[in-house]
Amino acid sequence: MVDLIKLGENAKKASFSLGKLSTNEKNEALLAVADALVAHSDEIITANKADMKNGKANNMSQGILDRLMLDEKRIADMADGLRQVAGLEDPIGEVLSMSKRPNGMIIGKRRVPIGVIGIIYEARPNVTSDAFALCFKTSNATILKGGSDAINSNRAIVKVIREVLKELDITEDAVSFIDSTDREDTKEFMKLNKYVDLLIPRGSASLIKATVENSTIPVIETGTGNCHIYVDEYADIDKAVKIIINAKTQRIGVCNACESLVIHKKIMNKAFPVILNALLDKDVEVRGDKQAVKAAYYAGVKIKEATEEDFYTEYLDYIISVKIVESIDEAIMHINEHNTKHSEAIISENYTNVQKFLDEIDAACVYANASTRFTDGNEFGFGAEIGISTQKIHARGPMGLKELTSQKYIIYGDGQIR
Amino acid sequence: MVDLIKLGENAKKASFSLGKLSTNEKNEALLAVADALVAHSDEIITANKADMKNGKANNMSQGILDRLMLDEKRIADMADGLRQVAGLEDPIGEVLSMSKRPNGMIIGKRRVPIGVIGIIYEARPNVTSDAFALCFKTSNATILKGGSDAINSNRAIVKVIREVLKELDITEDAVSFIDSTDREDTKEFMKLNKYVDLLIPRGSASLIKATVENSTIPVIETGTGNCHIYVDEYADIDKAVKIIINAKTQRIGVCNACESLVIHKKIMNKAFPVILNALLDKDVEVRGDKQAVKAAYYAGVKIKEATEEDFYTEYLDYIISVKIVESIDEAIMHINEHNTKHSEAIISENYTNVQKFLDEIDAACVYANASTRFTDGNEFGFGAEIGISTQKIHARGPMGLKELTSQKYIIYGDGQIR
Repeated sequence: MVDLIKLGENAKKASFSLGKLSTNEKNEALLAVADALVAHSDEIITANKADMKNGKANNMSQGILDRLMLDEKRIADMADGLRQVAGLEDPIGEVLSMSKRPNGMIIGKRRVPIGVIGIIYEARPNVTSDAFALCFKTSNATILKGGSDAINSNRAIVKVIREVLKELDITEDAVSFIDSTDREDTKEFMKLNKYVDLLIPRGSASLIKATVENSTIPVIETGTGNCHIYVDEYADIDKAVKIIINAKTQRIGVCNACESLVIHKKIMNKAFPVILNALLDKDVEVRGDKQAVKAAYYAGVKIKEATEEDFYTEYLDYIISVKIVESIDEAIMHINEHNTKHSEAIISENYTNVQKFLDEIDAACVYANASTRFTDGNEFGFGAEIGISTQKIHARGPMGLKELTSQKYIIYGDGQIR
Repeated sequence: MVDLIKLGENAKKASFSLGKLSTNEKNEALLAVADALVAHSDEIITANKADMKNGKANNMSQGILDRLMLDEKRIADMADGLRQVAGLEDPIGEVLSMSKRPNGMIIGKRRVPIGVIGIIYEARPNVTSDAFALCFKTSNATILKGGSDAINSNRAIVKVIREVLKELDITEDAVSFIDSTDREDTKEFMKLNKYVDLLIPRGSASLIKATVENSTIPVIETGTGNCHIYVDEYADIDKAVKIIINAKTQRIGVCNACESLVIHKKIMNKAFPVILNALLDKDVEVRGDKQAVKAAYYAGVKIKEATEEDFYTEYLDYIISVKIVESIDEAIMHINEHNTKHSEAIISENYTNVQKFLDEIDAACVYANASTRFTDGNEFGFGAEIGISTQKIHARGPMGLKELTSQKYIIYGDGQIR
């Protein structure tokens, strides 16, 4: 058992001293950590080899093994990530508003660190340095709980970061690491609301669900994406095909990939055969409702019928579901019922329908005539992201540095009383 | 048992239709509800009499009975509260930022409703109409769980509101009410994260603690205030006395009242006797640390020694604790350790110390030379408030209409793909 109370206390203490660092001091530390990761590549790779060996022995899938693997190139990428964060503007200290009240008091709203941020994630060791960088840049202390399968890699990476901080006379507890594979420790971690101000789970839907159900710390849910593209009766079919193929196939395992099509009945006979063939060309399995199955049949293609379960599924695979609707209202209702509030798109040349869709769809990002794949901190111009929030509290959509901050009111008085 | 799933589903459905109401429609409804509450005063007062009778039979304290009691004047005040909210600016639809990306996509960030907001509160029936008004103005559906002791009053108030909404052809489920005194229903309510987007507990520290521990819905903690005033070595003693007396005694039962003094040792002999006598004049019991007890003794007054427990206590009573410190750093450390992150003040004429205190204190509102009593939505110019957040996620400090909103990204494309 890890002494989580002690770890929490130390992180909280560290968070107060991080608040006093200047932007220059933080940037210098991030650059020094970047250099140190590269300099210690050998040790990190050795640790990673132990994880890879265990992973293979445990019959880990090829995809997960690939995410786990570190080599010199990937460590150099991690270092570049740190340098990139060093180059971003520091949001801490920004005054969001300031005004004088009738009694002469001046009230300002200032952007401040959140305090201590916990990150729970799976076997992706690059998240270790990414999460540290974003939290450190915003003067937050971080407690990391990475996947058990990456424990050796994470231990090695955190060791390098802490050594650099110590050399620079910055509190090492700016980053700490729960060195445990015991699930009870993870559960206890989720109850540390006395010390941890925010918990961000990054990973599978089941990890996120377990965190929401067990945590007493405020949680930001991230990254589950059952994203739809609605092909309106007034769609430009060429644009629709191009956007659907991009959103479905450019990268299949990501949360902003398209998982379901919704097609207006009036354009079905013209649009669906073209879309269907383009999808089949890319080896995408298409599962349709009764009408879609029929339309495919008339176009000479036999497709599987989608179950209600299909419409709730984030495949993360070469599969897509298709729903035919009678109206834009039915499309909006279907999407709001089945989506995960991540990213949704309408393809339409009709002004009123586009505005209606943008207004009424309940999601972090709603697109007109563009691919859902753009939901990403870099694409949005944030420079980096810690995840994509699919909930409505605190942050929604890609979370950059600003989303890792809180605020406080600063009041300058001159003896005012009530 | 109340069918909470059904109630949640209906509220979620209502939230979508509320999003389509115009500001004018919302304001007209608020004004109509205000008039209807006054018109139905008799029924509401009759229901309230049943609650008052039960309360007296259950030996409810005079203070709680007073908060529970409704008469014509108080119902008129509730109606005025609704009219005031109708007069506030509607934050929904505001575009917070909009910019064109290098690929030509236009990304806008728009303020939208949160969806469904749950409010758990104690025996204050005026919260029923206040909470409805703020949530409705921001196009959120509300599920109310008021204190069991006010159930007849709340049922009568919600009935009036729903009747008005129905007459105006607005979904009645804009507001719903958990008509139950069964604690199991409250616990189940806290697990409705599928339907409820935000839960705000208003009331005692134990109610808030229970909500944080049991809820799977994101919670905003409100209103616990162990507020400090630090009298710096460079304090203007007259200002200090005036502010301390105001913050401690102007209204004792409120979260922004001062509960603890921290005094610099160098000013102790000059300042403490004056402050002490002013407090005693107002019948405030003073509990000091060893040095404060000694200083009081030399000033001819015997005071009780404060325990460590005292320094963590929000008295909400005519009691105050006193801690003597050697430095501003010790003052800041003491406050950050013992406070509830609500409101803290420094009294000082020294520029550097004031800036240091404002920078380093971890609280929603940090004051220089003004009373902590100003932490309030009206005093801050928000027009109304649903509570004072003491956590760092989503909202911090007084929560007005803007704090009851979320945002979404609206992306205008022209066929962009990645």
